[in-house]
Amino acid sequence: MQRKQVRQEQGIKAVVVMSGGQDSALCAALAARNHGPERVAAITFRYGQRHSLETKYARFLARRFSLAMHKVVKLDFFDSITSSALLSKNAKIERAGKCPNTVVEGRNAFFLMAAAVWAKSLGADEVWTGVSQTDYSGYPDCRAAFVRAQEKAARLALDFPVKFKAPFLRKTKAQEWALADSMGLLDLIRENTLTCYNGIPGDGCGKCPACILRRKGLEEYLGGAVPSKP
Amino acid sequence: MQRKQVRQEQGIKAVVVMSGGQDSALCAALAARNHGPERVAAITFRYGQRHSLETKYARFLARRFSLAMHKVVKLDFFDSITSSALLSKNAKIERAGKCPNTVVEGRNAFFLMAAAVWAKSLGADEVWTGVSQTDYSGYPDCRAAFVRAQEKAARLALDFPVKFKAPFLRKTKAQEWALADSMGLLDLIRENTLTCYNGIPGDGCGKCPACILRRKGLEEYLGGAVPSKP
Repeated sequence: MQRKQVRQEQGIKAVVVMSGGQDSALCAALAARNHGPERVAAITFRYGQRHSLETKYARFLARRFSLAMHKVVKLDFFDSITSSALLSKNAKIERAGKCPNTVVEGRNAFFLMAAAVWAKSLGADEVWTGVSQTDYSGYPDCRAAFVRAQEKAARLALDFPVKFKAPFLRKTKAQEWALADSMGLLDLIRENTLTCYNGIPGDGCGKCPACILRRKGLEEYLGGAVPSKP
Repeated sequence: MQRKQVRQEQGIKAVVVMSGGQDSALCAALAARNHGPERVAAITFRYGQRHSLETKYARFLARRFSLAMHKVVKLDFFDSITSSALLSKNAKIERAGKCPNTVVEGRNAFFLMAAAVWAKSLGADEVWTGVSQTDYSGYPDCRAAFVRAQEKAARLALDFPVKFKAPFLRKTKAQEWALADSMGLLDLIRENTLTCYNGIPGDGCGKCPACILRRKGLEEYLGGAVPSKP
């Protein structure tokens, strides 16, 4: 009782950007383990992405991890300033040059800034993100250099010492599965997240680039081929 | 005819963030003088600000300067992640500490990033903004250090060599009026912009911090008290 009271008085320490995918689910669990779930808030963005089911999983996981708050924010301006296969119901997903056409230009800059603005309003000085530059599919805004640059810009814009925590920046998907397993969360995260570009939860369609990356990591961690789970 | 054709083939060179206020109006005129208006596009944000009349002036000026394009983009998520007197119809405008309560946290980070994303989609590598740190009322996201940091973050996020041009960063309001006058635009800008926190165009209410700053600069440039214009 005493302990809970003290924690509540300390308030929110970290805001986690939570998409409903594998990386951000594990990131939220990690932030909750670090600070206690009662000091962690999650923020999910609806930005016109194909699959609104992602938001459902984000909501489920925020509850499952007992996070103190979960906010869903609409950023629905992307399709008026850029185009992306991820913002279209019908576009074929393909790779043109070094970057796949599923990139939503600048997405993580908006996500991190909005999370930082909310964090400041809560008095929280950490923003956590699950981005990784190791298996990053060629998205430029998943690189460490970008995260550090946007952190500096946010600190200056807000005149507030916010820190961006990106614990998986240099982790592979296999290392993430290992961490999930060590936290007793492998099945939970495997079954209750959505990473598939075709909108199929869990192990997904098995054929799109996101599913292939996810499965490769899982097989690498488990040491062999694994049967698909729904 | 020949000349126009060549210019059209070169396409858009610069995107100007245009609010409908004095600084951004002059900034748009300057970009148009530099590159030719047919190579300049303007972007205006509706972010829940008190006075939608601003957008009307931005539209008028974009037409008046013969800019190639003008886009209005809704960024209406601010009131869900922060609070500001500028986002409320009734809040009293006042100064609490070093920063007035009209600050909209992180606003320029979102404006510059959205302009940069649109610029990339147009193949334009310059984003122009009228922010000034000289008479900046204490808004942290009007400082040179922030503009440079956000430029770096944008270049990394987009993997695109966009440049942020902020010609008034170190100019006073008086110097801006002098420049407007030298371009034959003093009356046009004085009469057809909205800076007043109470939503009155031109010389405004004369009492709010924005009107006082604007008038002070004008009197400094003109060398004495000036009668109010509607």
